[in-house]
Amino acid sequence: MRFDVVTLFPDIIKGACSESMPQRAGDKGLISINTVNPRDYTHDKHRKTDDTPYGGGAGMVLSCQPFMDALNSIEKEENSGTIIMTPQGEIFNQKMAKEFASKSQIRIICGHYEGFDERIRILSKAREVSLGDFVLSGGEYSAICIIDAVSRLLEGTLGNSDSKEYDSHSEYLLEYPQYTKPREYEGLEVPEVLLSGNHEKIAEWRRRKQFERTKQKRPDLFSKFIKTNLSDYDKKILKEFE
Amino acid sequence: MRFDVVTLFPDIIKGACSESMPQRAGDKGLISINTVNPRDYTHDKHRKTDDTPYGGGAGMVLSCQPFMDALNSIEKEENSGTIIMTPQGEIFNQKMAKEFASKSQIRIICGHYEGFDERIRILSKAREVSLGDFVLSGGEYSAICIIDAVSRLLEGTLGNSDSKEYDSHSEYLLEYPQYTKPREYEGLEVPEVLLSGNHEKIAEWRRRKQFERTKQKRPDLFSKFIKTNLSDYDKKILKEFE
Repeated sequence: MRFDVVTLFPDIIKGACSESMPQRAGDKGLISINTVNPRDYTHDKHRKTDDTPYGGGAGMVLSCQPFMDALNSIEKEENSGTIIMTPQGEIFNQKMAKEFASKSQIRIICGHYEGFDERIRILSKAREVSLGDFVLSGGEYSAICIIDAVSRLLEGTLGNSDSKEYDSHSEYLLEYPQYTKPREYEGLEVPEVLLSGNHEKIAEWRRRKQFERTKQKRPDLFSKFIKTNLSDYDKKILKEFE
Repeated sequence: MRFDVVTLFPDIIKGACSESMPQRAGDKGLISINTVNPRDYTHDKHRKTDDTPYGGGAGMVLSCQPFMDALNSIEKEENSGTIIMTPQGEIFNQKMAKEFASKSQIRIICGHYEGFDERIRILSKAREVSLGDFVLSGGEYSAICIIDAVSRLLEGTLGNSDSKEYDSHSEYLLEYPQYTKPREYEGLEVPEVLLSGNHEKIAEWRRRKQFERTKQKRPDLFSKFIKTNLSDYDKKILKEFE
Protein backbone atom coordinates (compact mmCIF):
# COMPACT_ATOMS: atom_id res chain seq x y z
CA MET A 1 0.00 0.00 0.00
CA ARG A 2 1.17 3.43 -0.91
CA PHE A 3 0.71 6.68 1.06
CA ASP A 4 1.37 9.95 -0.75
CA VAL A 5 1.41 12.95 1.53
CA VAL A 6 1.13 16.50 0.20
CA THR A 7 2.88 18.54 2.87
CA LEU A 8 4.98 21.63 3.46
CA PHE A 9 6.79 19.69 6.22
CA PRO A 10 7.92 16.36 4.72
CA ASP A 11 10.48 15.83 7.49
CA ILE A 12 7.77 15.54 10.13
CA ILE A 13 6.22 12.66 8.21
CA LYS A 14 9.55 11.02 7.46
CA GLY A 15 10.83 11.45 11.01
CA ALA A 16 7.78 9.94 12.65
CA CYS A 17 7.52 7.04 10.21
CA SER A 18 11.17 6.09 10.25
CA GLU A 19 10.74 4.02 13.42
CA SER A 20 8.45 1.46 14.90
CA MET A 21 5.55 -0.09 13.04
CA PRO A 22 5.47 2.16 9.92
CA GLN A 23 9.19 1.64 9.46
CA ARG A 24 8.91 -2.13 9.87
CA ALA A 25 5.97 -2.26 7.49
CA GLY A 26 8.06 -0.25 5.03
CA ASP A 27 11.03 -2.59 5.38
CA LYS A 28 8.77 -5.54 4.67
CA GLY A 29 7.57 -3.82 1.51
CA LEU A 30 3.99 -3.66 2.82
CA ILE A 31 3.76 0.12 2.66
CA SER A 32 5.64 2.98 1.08
CA ILE A 33 5.36 6.57 2.24
CA ASN A 34 6.07 9.35 -0.23
CA THR A 35 5.88 13.08 0.29
CA VAL A 36 5.26 15.88 -2.19
CA ASN A 37 5.99 19.45 -1.17
CA PRO A 38 3.76 22.17 -2.66
CA ARG A 39 6.70 24.53 -2.25
CA ASP A 40 8.43 22.64 -5.07
CA TYR A 41 5.45 23.32 -7.32
CA THR A 42 4.66 26.96 -6.70
CA HIS A 43 4.87 29.38 -9.61
CA ASP A 44 5.45 32.24 -7.21
CA LYS A 45 8.88 33.77 -7.57
CA HIS A 46 9.33 33.92 -3.79
CA ARG A 47 8.18 30.28 -3.54
CA LYS A 48 5.16 31.33 -1.53
CA THR A 49 2.45 28.75 -0.97
CA ASP A 50 -0.08 30.98 0.80
CA ASP A 51 -1.53 34.45 0.66
CA THR A 52 -3.84 36.79 2.58
CA PRO A 53 -7.55 35.93 2.72
CA TYR A 54 -10.06 37.70 0.49
CA GLY A 55 -12.42 39.67 2.67
CA GLY A 56 -9.72 40.27 5.30
CA GLY A 57 -9.04 38.59 8.60
CA ALA A 58 -6.19 37.03 10.54
CA GLY A 59 -3.87 34.35 9.22
CA MET A 60 -2.96 33.23 5.75
CA VAL A 61 -4.71 30.92 3.33
CA LEU A 62 -3.04 28.09 1.40
CA SER A 63 -3.12 28.75 -2.35
CA CYS A 64 -4.74 26.58 -4.99
CA GLN A 65 -1.96 26.41 -7.54
CA PRO A 66 0.92 24.89 -5.52
CA PHE A 67 -1.34 22.44 -3.64
CA MET A 68 -3.31 21.30 -6.68
CA ASP A 69 -0.20 20.94 -8.83
CA ALA A 70 1.54 18.96 -6.06
CA LEU A 71 -1.50 16.70 -5.69
CA ASN A 72 -1.83 16.19 -9.42
CA SER A 73 1.85 15.30 -9.74
CA ILE A 74 1.15 12.07 -7.85
CA GLU A 75 0.45 9.14 -10.08
CA LYS A 76 -2.97 7.84 -9.17
CA GLU A 77 -3.36 4.13 -8.74
CA GLU A 78 -6.55 2.35 -9.65
CA ASN A 79 -7.90 1.71 -6.17
CA SER A 80 -6.94 5.00 -4.57
CA GLY A 81 -8.53 7.46 -2.18
CA THR A 82 -7.77 11.10 -1.48
CA ILE A 83 -8.26 12.70 1.90
CA ILE A 84 -7.74 16.21 3.17
CA MET A 85 -7.00 16.82 6.83
CA THR A 86 -9.34 19.52 8.10
CA PRO A 87 -11.12 20.26 11.37
CA GLN A 88 -14.35 20.28 9.39
CA GLY A 89 -14.04 16.69 8.28
CA GLU A 90 -15.66 13.50 9.45
CA ILE A 91 -14.08 12.29 12.64
CA PHE A 92 -11.60 9.50 11.93
CA ASN A 93 -12.45 6.13 13.46
CA GLN A 94 -11.59 2.47 13.20
CA LYS A 95 -14.25 1.83 10.59
CA MET A 96 -12.68 4.45 8.36
CA ALA A 97 -9.23 2.95 9.01
CA LYS A 98 -10.50 -0.41 7.77
CA GLU A 99 -11.98 1.20 4.70
CA PHE A 100 -8.71 2.97 3.88
CA ALA A 101 -6.78 -0.26 4.45
CA SER A 102 -8.70 -1.82 1.54
CA LYS A 103 -7.23 0.72 -0.89
CA SER A 104 -3.95 0.36 -2.74
CA GLN A 105 -3.14 4.07 -2.37
CA ILE A 106 -4.13 6.93 -0.09
CA ARG A 107 -3.26 10.50 -0.99
CA ILE A 108 -3.32 12.80 2.04
CA ILE A 109 -3.37 16.60 1.77
CA CYS A 110 -2.04 18.38 4.87
CA GLY A 111 -2.51 22.02 5.66
CA HIS A 112 -0.45 23.95 8.11
CA TYR A 113 -1.58 26.64 10.53
CA GLU A 114 -3.85 28.23 8.00
CA GLY A 115 -6.90 27.11 6.20
CA PHE A 116 -7.05 25.91 2.61
CA ASP A 117 -8.47 27.95 -0.20
CA GLU A 118 -11.97 26.53 -0.51
CA ARG A 119 -11.32 25.59 -4.12
CA ILE A 120 -8.68 23.05 -3.07
CA ARG A 121 -11.39 21.12 -1.28
CA ILE A 122 -13.69 21.33 -4.27
CA LEU A 123 -11.17 20.50 -7.01
CA SER A 124 -9.37 17.72 -5.14
CA LYS A 125 -12.67 15.92 -4.51
CA ALA A 126 -10.93 14.75 -1.35
CA ARG A 127 -12.76 13.24 1.57
CA GLU A 128 -12.55 15.66 4.47
CA VAL A 129 -11.22 13.98 7.59
CA SER A 130 -10.55 15.28 11.09
CA LEU A 131 -8.77 13.44 13.87
CA GLY A 132 -11.05 14.86 16.54
CA ASP A 133 -12.44 17.97 18.16
CA PHE A 134 -9.12 19.61 18.87
CA VAL A 135 -6.96 22.02 16.91
CA LEU A 136 -3.50 21.05 15.65
CA SER A 137 -0.97 23.38 14.09
CA GLY A 138 -0.86 21.19 11.00
CA GLY A 139 -2.33 18.20 9.28
CA GLU A 140 0.97 16.31 9.43
CA TYR A 141 0.38 14.96 12.93
CA SER A 142 -3.05 13.71 11.96
CA ALA A 143 -1.66 12.18 8.77
CA ILE A 144 0.88 10.21 10.81
CA CYS A 145 -1.87 8.79 13.00
CA ILE A 146 -3.89 7.79 9.96
CA ILE A 147 -0.89 6.14 8.29
CA ASP A 148 -0.21 4.21 11.50
CA ALA A 149 -3.82 3.16 12.12
CA VAL A 150 -4.25 2.00 8.52
CA SER A 151 -0.86 0.29 8.19
CA ARG A 152 -1.29 -1.87 11.25
CA LEU A 153 -4.42 -3.38 9.71
CA LEU A 154 -2.53 -4.67 6.68
CA GLU A 155 -1.80 -8.37 6.61
CA GLY A 156 1.71 -9.00 7.92
CA THR A 157 2.49 -5.68 9.63
CA LEU A 158 1.98 -6.84 13.21
CA GLY A 159 4.26 -9.54 14.53
CA ASN A 160 1.52 -11.46 16.22
CA SER A 161 -1.43 -11.70 13.89
CA ASP A 162 -3.73 -12.34 16.85
CA SER A 163 -3.01 -8.98 18.40
CA LYS A 164 -5.28 -7.06 16.08
CA GLU A 165 -8.40 -8.85 17.20
CA TYR A 166 -7.80 -8.18 20.84
CA ASP A 167 -7.44 -4.46 20.48
CA SER A 168 -9.85 -2.00 21.97
CA HIS A 169 -12.47 -0.57 19.66
CA SER A 170 -12.14 -3.46 17.24
CA GLU A 171 -15.64 -3.98 18.42
CA TYR A 172 -17.62 -1.76 20.79
CA LEU A 173 -15.93 -2.97 23.95
CA LEU A 174 -12.87 -1.67 25.74
CA GLU A 175 -10.13 -4.10 26.69
CA TYR A 176 -10.04 -6.11 29.90
CA PRO A 177 -7.24 -5.34 32.41
CA GLN A 178 -3.91 -7.00 31.67
CA TYR A 179 -1.30 -8.16 34.15
CA THR A 180 2.20 -9.54 33.77
CA LYS A 181 4.97 -10.58 36.15
CA PRO A 182 5.59 -10.05 39.04
CA ARG A 183 2.57 -11.37 40.91
CA GLU A 184 2.87 -8.59 43.40
CA TYR A 185 4.14 -5.07 42.74
CA GLU A 186 4.06 -2.26 45.30
CA GLY A 187 1.50 -4.20 47.30
CA LEU A 188 -0.82 -4.75 44.34
CA GLU A 189 -1.53 -8.34 43.43
CA VAL A 190 -2.62 -10.00 40.22
CA PRO A 191 -6.27 -11.13 40.50
CA GLU A 192 -6.46 -14.73 41.68
CA VAL A 193 -8.53 -15.93 38.75
CA LEU A 194 -5.75 -15.16 36.25
CA LEU A 195 -3.45 -17.55 38.10
CA SER A 196 -6.06 -20.30 38.29
CA GLY A 197 -5.31 -21.94 34.95
CA ASN A 198 -9.06 -22.28 34.45
CA HIS A 199 -9.44 -20.94 30.93
CA GLU A 200 -13.19 -20.81 31.03
CA LYS A 201 -13.23 -18.78 34.21
CA ILE A 202 -10.52 -16.48 32.92
CA ALA A 203 -12.43 -15.83 29.69
CA GLU A 204 -15.58 -15.09 31.66
CA TRP A 205 -13.80 -12.76 34.10
CA ARG A 206 -12.22 -10.87 31.21
CA ARG A 207 -15.48 -10.51 29.36
CA ARG A 208 -17.19 -9.21 32.48
CA LYS A 209 -14.38 -6.70 33.01
CA GLN A 210 -14.84 -5.50 29.45
CA PHE A 211 -18.52 -4.89 30.12
CA GLU A 212 -17.78 -3.17 33.43
CA ARG A 213 -15.16 -0.86 32.00
CA THR A 214 -17.03 0.04 28.89
CA LYS A 215 -20.21 0.79 30.80
CA GLN A 216 -18.31 2.95 33.24
CA LYS A 217 -15.88 4.74 30.95
CA ARG A 218 -17.67 4.78 27.62
CA PRO A 219 -21.42 4.48 28.10
CA ASP A 220 -21.83 5.67 24.50
CA LEU A 221 -19.97 2.60 23.19
CA PHE A 222 -21.69 0.30 25.64
CA SER A 223 -25.14 1.30 24.49
CA LYS A 224 -24.05 0.58 20.92
CA PHE A 225 -22.70 -2.78 21.99
CA ILE A 226 -25.88 -3.98 23.66
CA LYS A 227 -27.81 -3.14 20.50
CA THR A 228 -25.66 -5.53 18.44
CA ASN A 229 -26.58 -9.14 17.83
CA LEU A 230 -25.36 -10.55 21.15
CA SER A 231 -24.23 -14.15 21.51
CA ASP A 232 -25.91 -16.32 24.14
CA TYR A 233 -22.61 -16.34 25.99
CA ASP A 234 -22.54 -12.53 26.15
CA LYS A 235 -26.21 -12.42 27.12
CA LYS A 236 -25.55 -14.73 30.05
CA ILE A 237 -22.58 -12.71 31.33
CA LEU A 238 -24.45 -9.49 30.78
CA LYS A 239 -27.37 -10.76 32.82
CA GLU A 240 -25.15 -11.70 35.77
CA PHE A 241 -23.33 -8.44 35.45
CA GLU A 242 -26.44 -6.31 35.53
CA MET B 1 5.98 24.52 29.81
CA ARG B 2 7.62 21.18 30.07
CA PHE B 3 6.55 17.88 28.46
CA ASP B 4 8.10 14.68 29.77
CA VAL B 5 7.32 11.65 27.65
CA VAL B 6 7.84 8.13 28.93
CA THR B 7 8.39 6.16 25.75
CA LEU B 8 10.21 3.18 24.27
CA PHE B 9 10.55 5.18 21.03
CA PRO B 10 12.02 8.57 21.94
CA ASP B 11 13.12 9.22 18.35
CA ILE B 12 9.53 9.30 17.13
CA ILE B 13 8.79 12.13 19.56
CA LYS B 14 12.02 13.96 18.84
CA GLY B 15 11.67 13.54 15.07
CA ALA B 16 8.16 14.86 14.91
CA CYS B 17 8.78 17.77 17.28
CA SER B 18 12.00 18.94 15.68
CA GLU B 19 10.13 20.92 13.04
CA SER B 20 7.32 23.34 12.69
CA MET B 21 5.40 24.74 15.66
CA PRO B 22 6.79 22.54 18.48
CA GLN B 23 10.33 23.28 17.30
CA ARG B 24 9.68 27.01 17.09
CA ALA B 25 8.03 27.01 20.50
CA GLY B 26 11.08 25.16 21.81
CA ASP B 27 13.48 27.65 20.24
CA LYS B 28 11.57 30.48 21.90
CA GLY B 29 11.93 28.72 25.23
CA LEU B 30 8.18 28.37 25.59
CA ILE B 31 8.23 24.59 25.77
CA SER B 32 10.76 21.85 26.37
CA ILE B 33 10.23 18.24 25.39
CA ASN B 34 12.08 15.53 27.28
CA THR B 35 11.90 11.80 26.85
CA VAL B 36 12.56 9.02 29.33
CA ASN B 37 12.97 5.47 28.05
CA PRO B 38 11.76 2.65 30.32
CA ARG B 39 14.37 0.45 28.67
CA ASP B 40 17.02 2.48 30.49
CA TYR B 41 15.33 1.65 33.80
CA THR B 42 14.57 -2.04 33.51
CA HIS B 43 16.14 -4.39 36.04
CA ASP B 44 15.80 -7.25 33.58
CA LYS B 45 19.14 -8.57 32.41
CA HIS B 46 17.92 -8.74 28.80
CA ARG B 47 16.59 -5.19 29.12
CA LYS B 48 13.05 -6.43 28.58
CA THR B 49 10.21 -4.02 29.27
CA ASP B 50 7.31 -6.41 28.74
CA ASP B 51 6.26 -9.97 29.46
CA THR B 52 3.49 -12.45 28.68
CA PRO B 53 0.03 -11.81 30.15
CA TYR B 54 -1.17 -13.67 33.24
CA GLY B 55 -4.12 -15.78 32.24
CA GLY B 56 -2.79 -16.28 28.71
CA GLY B 57 -3.69 -14.61 25.46
CA ALA B 58 -2.04 -12.95 22.50
CA GLY B 59 0.48 -10.13 22.71
CA MET B 60 2.72 -8.89 25.46
CA VAL B 61 2.05 -6.63 28.45
CA LEU B 62 4.22 -3.70 29.50
CA SER B 63 5.79 -4.30 32.91
CA CYS B 64 5.34 -2.19 36.03
CA GLN B 65 8.94 -1.83 37.14
CA PRO B 66 10.57 -0.17 34.08
CA PHE B 67 7.61 2.10 33.39
CA MET B 68 7.07 3.17 37.00
CA ASP B 69 10.76 3.75 37.59
CA ALA B 70 11.03 5.77 34.38
CA LEU B 71 8.02 7.85 35.38
CA ASN B 72 9.27 8.40 38.90
CA SER B 73 12.68 9.50 37.62
CA ILE B 74 11.06 12.65 36.25
CA GLU B 75 11.22 15.57 38.58
CA LYS B 76 7.67 16.66 39.25
CA GLU B 77 6.91 20.34 39.09
CA GLU B 78 4.33 21.95 41.29
CA ASN B 79 1.58 22.45 38.74
CA SER B 80 1.95 19.21 36.84
CA GLY B 81 -0.37 16.63 35.33
CA THR B 82 0.23 13.03 34.32
CA ILE B 83 -1.57 11.36 31.46
CA ILE B 84 -1.44 7.88 30.05
CA MET B 85 -2.31 7.24 26.41
CA THR B 86 -4.81 4.41 26.25
CA PRO B 87 -7.79 3.51 24.03
CA GLN B 88 -9.84 3.34 27.21
CA GLY B 89 -9.30 6.95 28.12
CA GLU B 90 -11.42 10.04 27.80
CA ILE B 91 -11.45 11.29 24.25
CA PHE B 92 -9.06 14.23 23.88
CA ASN B 93 -10.66 17.51 22.89
CA GLN B 94 -9.99 21.23 22.80
CA LYS B 95 -11.32 21.76 26.31
CA MET B 96 -8.79 19.25 27.62
CA ALA B 97 -6.04 20.93 25.58
CA LYS B 98 -6.85 24.24 27.30
CA GLU B 99 -6.79 22.58 30.68
CA PHE B 100 -3.38 21.01 29.99
CA ALA B 101 -2.08 24.35 28.71
CA SER B 102 -2.65 25.83 32.16
CA LYS B 103 -0.12 23.40 33.70
CA SER B 104 3.60 23.96 33.96
CA GLN B 105 4.38 20.32 33.23
CA ILE B 106 2.68 17.37 31.55
CA ARG B 107 4.06 13.87 31.96
CA ILE B 108 2.83 11.54 29.20
CA ILE B 109 3.12 7.75 29.44
CA CYS B 110 3.09 6.01 26.05
CA GLY B 111 2.55 2.33 25.50
CA HIS B 112 3.47 0.48 22.37
CA TYR B 113 1.52 -2.29 20.61
CA GLU B 114 0.66 -3.99 23.86
CA GLY B 115 -1.39 -3.03 26.85
CA PHE B 116 -0.05 -1.76 30.15
CA ASP B 117 0.01 -3.85 33.28
CA GLU B 118 -3.11 -2.62 35.07
CA ARG B 119 -1.01 -1.58 38.07
CA ILE B 120 0.77 1.08 36.01
CA ARG B 121 -2.56 2.82 35.58
CA ILE B 122 -3.32 2.53 39.26
CA LEU B 123 0.07 3.54 40.66
CA SER B 124 0.74 6.39 38.24
CA LYS B 125 -2.62 7.98 39.08
CA ALA B 126 -2.47 9.20 35.51
CA ARG B 127 -5.46 10.57 33.68
CA GLU B 128 -6.36 8.12 30.93
CA VAL B 129 -6.61 9.84 27.57
CA SER B 130 -7.42 8.52 24.10
CA LEU B 131 -7.11 10.42 20.85
CA GLY B 132 -10.22 8.84 19.41
CA ASP B 133 -12.00 5.63 18.51
CA PHE B 134 -9.22 4.17 16.41
CA VAL B 135 -6.29 1.93 17.23
CA LEU B 136 -2.70 3.09 16.90
CA SER B 137 0.39 0.94 17.19
CA GLY B 138 1.70 3.16 19.97
CA GLY B 139 0.94 6.11 22.20
CA GLU B 140 3.73 8.17 20.66
CA TYR B 141 1.63 9.43 17.76
CA SER B 142 -1.13 10.51 20.13
CA ALA B 143 1.41 12.16 22.43
CA ILE B 144 2.73 14.25 19.54
CA CYS B 145 -0.78 15.46 18.75
CA ILE B 146 -1.36 16.41 22.37
CA ILE B 147 1.97 18.24 22.61
CA ASP B 148 1.11 20.16 19.46
CA ALA B 149 -2.48 20.98 20.45
CA VAL B 150 -1.40 22.17 23.90
CA SER B 151 1.71 24.08 22.78
CA ARG B 152 -0.12 26.16 20.22
CA LEU B 153 -2.36 27.51 22.96
CA LEU B 154 0.56 28.95 24.90
CA GLU B 155 1.05 32.68 24.70
CA GLY B 156 3.61 33.49 22.02
CA THR B 157 3.76 30.21 20.11
CA LEU B 158 1.72 31.27 17.11
CA GLY B 159 3.08 34.07 14.94
CA ASN B 160 -0.22 35.83 14.64
CA SER B 161 -1.89 35.92 18.02
CA ASP B 162 -5.28 36.41 16.36
CA SER B 163 -5.11 33.07 14.61
CA LYS B 164 -6.06 31.05 17.63
CA GLU B 165 -9.45 32.64 17.97
CA TYR B 166 -10.43 31.96 14.42
CA ASP B 167 -9.73 28.28 14.55
CA SER B 168 -12.39 25.66 14.18
CA HIS B 169 -13.70 24.11 17.36
CA SER B 170 -12.53 27.05 19.47
CA GLU B 171 -16.21 27.35 19.92
CA TYR B 172 -18.89 25.02 18.58
CA LEU B 173 -18.78 26.28 15.03
CA LEU B 174 -16.71 25.14 12.09
CA GLU B 175 -14.80 27.69 10.07
CA TYR B 176 -16.19 29.67 7.18
CA PRO B 177 -14.71 29.05 3.72
CA GLN B 178 -11.49 30.89 2.98
CA TYR B 179 -10.26 32.18 -0.36
CA THR B 180 -7.03 33.75 -1.50
CA LYS B 181 -5.60 34.91 -4.83
CA PRO B 182 -6.26 34.39 -7.70
CA ARG B 183 -9.86 35.52 -8.10
CA GLU B 184 -10.49 32.74 -10.52
CA TYR B 185 -8.88 29.30 -10.50
CA GLU B 186 -9.90 26.47 -12.82
CA GLY B 187 -13.16 28.22 -13.50
CA LEU B 188 -14.01 28.66 -9.82
CA GLU B 189 -14.47 32.23 -8.64
CA VAL B 190 -14.15 33.87 -5.25
CA PRO B 191 -17.63 34.78 -3.93
CA GLU B 192 -18.51 38.35 -4.87
CA VAL B 193 -19.18 39.48 -1.31
CA LEU B 194 -15.57 38.89 -0.25
CA LEU B 195 -14.41 41.39 -2.87
CA SER B 196 -16.99 44.00 -1.88
CA GLY B 197 -14.97 45.69 0.83
CA ASN B 198 -18.16 45.84 2.91
CA HIS B 199 -16.94 44.51 6.23
CA GLU B 200 -20.36 44.17 7.73
CA LYS B 201 -21.64 42.10 4.84
CA ILE B 202 -18.51 39.98 4.81
CA ALA B 203 -18.81 39.24 8.53
CA GLU B 204 -22.45 38.31 8.10
CA TRP B 205 -21.76 36.04 5.12
CA ARG B 206 -18.98 34.29 7.02
CA ARG B 207 -21.12 33.76 10.08
CA ARG B 208 -23.93 32.34 7.98
CA LYS B 209 -21.49 30.00 6.24
CA GLN B 210 -20.30 28.80 9.65
CA PHE B 211 -23.88 27.99 10.61
CA GLU B 212 -24.53 26.26 7.29
CA ARG B 213 -21.42 24.12 7.41
CA THR B 214 -21.73 23.15 11.02
CA LYS B 215 -25.36 22.21 10.65
CA GLN B 216 -24.59 20.13 7.57
CA LYS B 217 -21.31 18.49 8.60
CA ARG B 218 -21.50 18.37 12.37
CA PRO B 219 -25.10 18.49 13.54
CA ASP B 220 -23.86 17.32 16.96
CA LEU B 221 -21.80 20.50 17.39
CA PHE B 222 -24.52 22.67 15.94
CA SER B 223 -27.07 21.49 18.45
CA LYS B 224 -24.60 22.32 21.22
CA PHE B 225 -24.04 25.74 19.72
CA ILE B 226 -27.69 26.73 19.58
CA LYS B 227 -28.03 25.83 23.25
CA THR B 228 -25.35 28.35 24.22
CA ASN B 229 -26.10 31.90 25.22
CA LEU B 230 -26.50 33.36 21.72
CA SER B 231 -25.85 37.00 20.95
CA ASP B 232 -28.59 39.05 19.33
CA TYR B 233 -26.41 39.22 16.25
CA ASP B 234 -26.23 35.43 16.01
CA LYS B 235 -29.93 35.09 16.71
CA LYS B 236 -30.72 37.41 13.83
CA ILE B 237 -28.49 35.56 11.37
CA LEU B 238 -29.77 32.23 12.61
CA LYS B 239 -33.33 33.31 12.03
CA GLU B 240 -32.65 34.33 8.44
CA PHE B 241 -30.68 31.17 7.90
CA GLU B 242 -33.39 28.89 9.14
